[in-house]
Order: sequence, then C-alpha cells, then structure tokens
Amino acid sequence: MIELEIQTGTKNELVDITLQVGDAVARSAVKSGICHLFMPHTTAGVTLNENWDPSVKLDILRTLDSMAPQRRDYRHAEGNSPAHLKAMMVGFSATVPINEGRLVLRTWQGIYLAEFDGPRKRRVLIQVLAG
Amino acid sequence: MIELEIQTGTKNELVDITLQVGDAVARSAVKSGICHLFMPHTTAGVTLNENWDPSVKLDILRTLDSMAPQRRDYRHAEGNSPAHLKAMMVGFSATVPINEGRLVLRTWQGIYLAEFDGPRKRRVLIQVLAG
Amino acid sequence: MIELEIQTGTKNELVDITLQVGDAVARSAVKSGICHLFMPHTTAGVTLNENWDPSVKLDILRTLDSMAPQRRDYRHAEGNSPAHLKAMMVGFSATVPINEGRLVLRTWQGIYLAEFDGPRKRRVLIQVLAG
Repeated sequence: MIELEIQTGTKNELVDITLQVGDAVARSAVKSGICHLFMPHTTAGVTLNENWDPSVKLDILRTLDSMAPQRRDYRHAEGNSPAHLKAMMVGFSATVPINEGRLVLRTWQGIYLAEFDGPRKRRVLIQVLAG
Repeated sequence: MIELEIQTGTKNELVDITLQVGDAVARSAVKSGICHLFMPHTTAGVTLNENWDPSVKLDILRTLDSMAPQRRDYRHAEGNSPAHLKAMMVGFSATVPINEGRLVLRTWQGIYLAEFDGPRKRRVLIQVLAG
Repeated sequence: MIELEIQTGTKNELVDITLQVGDAVARSAVKSGICHLFMPHTTAGVTLNENWDPSVKLDILRTLDSMAPQRRDYRHAEGNSPAHLKAMMVGFSATVPINEGRLVLRTWQGIYLAEFDGPRKRRVLIQVLAG
C-alpha cells in the first residue's frame, strides 16, 4: 500500500492528485489491473472529473453546497454534517483501470481529493492490484 | 463469497456492520488486499461514515430526504422512488483496503448498510481479494 | 480489458447494459471474482438500479435534475456543469461480484450507463478480476 499525504488549503476544495497517483502506479510495476484509492477520512472523499476548465470544480462545489447547506439545523455538534454527507455522495474510494503500466484516463479526466472540512492534512491510500 | 444477512428496523436507517465485515476479513486469512462489499438490492446501499456521534447519521438521513422528498409526484407506482435514488447516490458497493489481515479504517470510521425502504431482511455480499 | 461502445440517444438517459456486461464476463472465463466497470468520461457515469419498471428511471432522472438544475448560474462555459455533477454523484465506476462464472445480480437489478450530456458515443471499460 502506498500512502499520499495531501495538505488541503481551504474548507471546500477539489485537489488534483492525478500525477501523484500515476507515480504510484508506475512505481508498482503492475502492467495491467486496477488502481484502488481509499480515503481513511469521513469528511473528505475521492473522485474523478474534468481537469481542464477550473470552473467545473467551482460549479460542483457550489451545487453540492446547495444540496447540503451549511446553515441547516443539524444535530451533530461539530457542525460539519454537510461535510460528512458531501464526502459520502462523492464517495470514499475510486478505482481506475491500469493498462500498459499506466492509468487509463481520458484526456482532461483527473483524479481529485474532495475536501469538505479543510484545511486539513489528508491521507490517500493507494493499492495497485494486478489482474 | 461471504454473505451477511441483516434485518433492518425502520424505513430509513444506517446500520453499522463494521464488526461483521471485520470478522469476514479475519476468516478469509487474506493479509493484504481489498474487501469488496456489494448490495444485491436496489433500495439499500452500502457506505462508510463516522460511527462516533449518532447525530451524524440523523443529519445524513434528513438531508437525503430533503434532496429526494417522499412527497414528490413520482411515476413509479410502488412509491419508493426516493429509496432507489438515495441508494444509488450512497452506492451499491464499497471497497476497503486490508493490511496485516485487518480492515484499514480510521478511528470512528465505520461501514454502514444504508436502508431506505425498510424494514426488510437485507443481504451484503463480501469478497476478499488478495493483492 | 474489454471495451463496450454505446451510442446514447438523448441528453439524460439510463441505458441498460446488463446483457453486454454479462457477455464480457462469460467470455473472460473467470468463475469467481469481480467485474469492474469504468467510464472514461466526465459527464456520464455507471451504476445499478431496478430494471423492471421504467418509471424508476424517469423518477431518478427528474430528481437528479431538481438537485442540479440546468438553469442555475454556472461558471463553466460549456453549460454542462450539471452533467459533471450528476455523473460524479452516480459514480464513474461500478463493481459487481462474479460467482460460478456469472454476475451476481438480484432479479430486476440491472447495470446502467448514466448519460447526462448526450446524445454521444460512450465507452465502458470492463475488467474481470479473479479472486
């Protein structure tokens, strides 16, 4: 298992980690299989999306905010219930195929750490499975 | 494949199944790999979240209700369209890394069966893949 | 890796691909393991749901529309920000167990390509992992 450590910079943020994940795959020497990403956190997720126009990230974060508004009457005393929900919707794991030793991603398709309760130091666990 | 059978108790509920999944991993004798969970259902999902403060679960269920309200004008005659949607957003599978023969979960991070059309008897299919 | 090519027919659509995925599993000759599906796209996802009553699909698509409305003030100039968000919520990958050489799906449980920015030609990447 390879572990990335990522320092996020603000409360809600999509951090592009495509290059770091690609490095992990290259180091594994696996030519064909699956790259499994897992977040050992409950207020940040991992997902994929377009990495060309940064507006896409802003639109996604704003729409998630409209679905799980910060100001709702939540019970959870820490006040980060929207972060728990948003991370769950985005997902705590992602899997990407590996072919010829590289991640199979389309042009402009990137892998993102989805921070919803930052800034924090986050870990991403990477496993490369041959198959 | 290992199969859990879980009786849910109410319509919308997050049932903590972390211990049962951990038992399945221990029995598999796999030291390193991935634990794959799958729901053979369309109105219940499987996900992870904080298992310390029970308010988190309530806040999550209430916010999902606000996104897919029960009272909307749905076409599906069984009346459980919100359950289909909520299960899909939560997800029908989850994958957790295994290291040194144990699930790699952070403190307070638990695995949940997400019931949205209970009470029902639900099954969770568990596969442990070495890698 | 097996690749499906699917021509979608309209802007928002859930296309049942269960039979094609089942064929890919049969051709792989893997008796026990996992079937991994991946979308090399950022405005279409892959998920599971009921495939009996077509109203379920309509209700799901309409409720997703209410969560990420088309008319909101988005920054992304292409105008397809809702598609990026909906695909992310649905998910870009799905995993289904394989037992005795077949997908383990419940009756009426189907696998869907979730199109949110069609009509387009889409690809679904299928990997079958023994385990």
